[in-house]
Amino acid sequence: MVFPSSVKAVVLLLTLSANPTARDLACSLADEVGPRLAGTEGDPLAVKWAVEKMSALGLSNVHTEPIKVQAWVRLEERAELVAPVARKLAVTALGGSVSTPDGGVEAEVIAVPSLEALKALPDEKVKGRIVFYDKVMERLPSGKGYEAAVDVRRSGAAEAARKGAVASLIRSVGTGEARLPHTGYQRYLDDVPRIPSGALAIPDAELLRRTLARGAPVRLRLAISTRTLPERESANVVGEVPGTTKADEVMLLGAHLDSWDLGDGALDDAAGVGIVLDAAQRLVGTKPKRTVRVVLFMDEEFGGRGSRAYVEAHRAELPKHVAALEADSGAGVPLGVDYTAGPEAAKALAPLKAQLQKLKLRGPTAGDAGGADTRRLDGVPQLEVDQDRSRYFDVHHSADDTCDKIRADEIARAADVVLLLARHVANLEGDLGRVPQKSAAGK
Amino acid sequence: MVFPSSVKAVVLLLTLSANPTARDLACSLADEVGPRLAGTEGDPLAVKWAVEKMSALGLSNVHTEPIKVQAWVRLEERAELVAPVARKLAVTALGGSVSTPDGGVEAEVIAVPSLEALKALPDEKVKGRIVFYDKVMERLPSGKGYEAAVDVRRSGAAEAARKGAVASLIRSVGTGEARLPHTGYQRYLDDVPRIPSGALAIPDAELLRRTLARGAPVRLRLAISTRTLPERESANVVGEVPGTTKADEVMLLGAHLDSWDLGDGALDDAAGVGIVLDAAQRLVGTKPKRTVRVVLFMDEEFGGRGSRAYVEAHRAELPKHVAALEADSGAGVPLGVDYTAGPEAAKALAPLKAQLQKLKLRGPTAGDAGGADTRRLDGVPQLEVDQDRSRYFDVHHSADDTCDKIRADEIARAADVVLLLARHVANLEGDLGRVPQKSAAGK
Repeated sequence: MVFPSSVKAVVLLLTLSANPTARDLACSLADEVGPRLAGTEGDPLAVKWAVEKMSALGLSNVHTEPIKVQAWVRLEERAELVAPVARKLAVTALGGSVSTPDGGVEAEVIAVPSLEALKALPDEKVKGRIVFYDKVMERLPSGKGYEAAVDVRRSGAAEAARKGAVASLIRSVGTGEARLPHTGYQRYLDDVPRIPSGALAIPDAELLRRTLARGAPVRLRLAISTRTLPERESANVVGEVPGTTKADEVMLLGAHLDSWDLGDGALDDAAGVGIVLDAAQRLVGTKPKRTVRVVLFMDEEFGGRGSRAYVEAHRAELPKHVAALEADSGAGVPLGVDYTAGPEAAKALAPLKAQLQKLKLRGPTAGDAGGADTRRLDGVPQLEVDQDRSRYFDVHHSADDTCDKIRADEIARAADVVLLLARHVANLEGDLGRVPQKSAAGK
Repeated sequence: MVFPSSVKAVVLLLTLSANPTARDLACSLADEVGPRLAGTEGDPLAVKWAVEKMSALGLSNVHTEPIKVQAWVRLEERAELVAPVARKLAVTALGGSVSTPDGGVEAEVIAVPSLEALKALPDEKVKGRIVFYDKVMERLPSGKGYEAAVDVRRSGAAEAARKGAVASLIRSVGTGEARLPHTGYQRYLDDVPRIPSGALAIPDAELLRRTLARGAPVRLRLAISTRTLPERESANVVGEVPGTTKADEVMLLGAHLDSWDLGDGALDDAAGVGIVLDAAQRLVGTKPKRTVRVVLFMDEEFGGRGSRAYVEAHRAELPKHVAALEADSGAGVPLGVDYTAGPEAAKALAPLKAQLQKLKLRGPTAGDAGGADTRRLDGVPQLEVDQDRSRYFDVHHSADDTCDKIRADEIARAADVVLLLARHVANLEGDLGRVPQKSAAGK
């Protein structure tokens, strides 16, 4: 069937105007798939979503790369003050927490402000008690308050168990005032018992603090029930904008497809998925020299099996990865651009400076760039868009991580910068060198 | 035992410095009693708390005035999208809602922006469906967005049932972005069936809106289980600063002792309790001409049986109530003072103007003053401190209504103005006249 050119123009216009925005893409994943911890019900739905969306956006070579994952699920979580007053507390189990014995554990609470303070306590002060880490996260645009506070989440249970505690609770690692706890990954150690481990919502942590301040002994009952499911198949999802003259070289744009189970993973990390898919769709048809490859990693939140599998499968090809950029910082406006690369990078990226200045952005700045997944790509230069994370941790890893928190104008600006970087690197004459390899990468 | 005067001074100083602040008082009720819907477990704890606190603060004639209440309790509440996607939604039953049949109701959703829009629909569009009232509350310092939006909560289920709906859901009447639904009172009508009635958290209401906007029919399953308990005894709690030359005349300071069940009732209305108790403790020993009577009403949230009982018991004394002030607007800073009174009031309150101006406050302004409880006092002049309610409805009637939302400096300023008004009116030469009686007061 042949259309007159005016009809063709209308069809083209409709097609163009129908292009989803970064927010559309992020909210489609958050709304239509929702929670999608690796290995749970949402996991295959997310993989299917990604394959269909990449195809619809015109990416090439869309495919899945299989991995094994193992889901952990929460069945029950309850906490209550027993004395000096009876009060229910909003609590959630931390990722991987074991269950309490039937009926829960009840014990006196001992509060500490930090891991260091816990370590300084004599064992008899901790033995038989529930340790409460009352560490406050600072709200900063850089999000650096998170790194400063998250140690109690990652290691709190193990260190408390070492001293004989029966359970560990943290003040949620987050900002904001909502009565919704924030979950996240935690690590047990092989040489100490595994004790149940949870996070209180911030208002509940503050209630516990005030109750302790009144001076009478505080007893708390905690009931957590969780299960680890059998290993199952999942996948990373990959799609490309094929390169032309240097098609075997790869500019990797990454984000992670999985999310925590409490919310819809809108900021973490449907936003990143939306950002890299939006940048990629705008590269379709632009014939970059190098291949721009979008990789949506599975299982970033619970062990990183997706990125580990990618590294295994693509080890021989890693030297051809000219750079990797992971979008995993929410939907806030861009503030600047950071990179970690070889000495060649300063000159290669210098032409971006003027473009970033026009957008009132800092950089490119040599520093500690890289996402949790892409850092595993040994030797591969890392690019990162520094986004405003002031409000990111209000909802991060909580039930509040929903699409309504994403502003279309803000996420669009982040996607614009990713596009700028990807286009520049994909079309570079030279490259960004290699990153000196550190000791073996761990999680 | 006789102390030297220097020791007496120290003891006096310690006593003074130990005076609780308005925030201390509010947080003591919110933290140590917590949820206290009339007739539930928290009700007698709240009554006991109030009697003890009034006595400790030095009020006179502290006593309870018995009332009958009937509690309504929620046992289960679940909502989930069934099609076109499966998603769990954060929902709560509205006060007094009946239960769904066993297994819940499942039906197609029809959204309307208002009661008027629902009424304009032909019955066949509503019959057998779940009506979703998607009405957005505006954030305003005056809190007037609440009155504009709350009609769908109060009457939504009854009007939907009139057209054959099987259930009614509203977007929570509130502001903010937290994924916690806001409950509240709703009314059934005698001539239409009682259908289950709930409120979605705001992010979930927005998810439902976006899902409907995609065009495919949306089916939802709602399971609500509630129970109405037998009638039981409860009480208003009363305490006084006795008057001197006009001791039989009353300046009433009111707040409500009960709260909704989801949160700790910190802003609604432990804040009001803290404000009036703080003002009263500062009047102790000041020998006001008139008696200042603090009344902490039970059951403001669920039928107003406390204020109805007060009116019955004190009907003969109402003409001696020279004014009533109810603090039930949270813990925000004062913006001005309003009153509803007789023609004498303008002159009697005029001396306050300069004092309010010094505090950069508006008024006294003749207008529509009065709280839900004190409005029932027929003929009694009403005073009201207009507080900033910009953030009040972020947490109002939700699990988020906790003490951490109260700022000591803000609530203290509100208490200062209540003290100013109470002292002025208690010591007036004349009075504020009477309020013309309207038609019979309802809820």
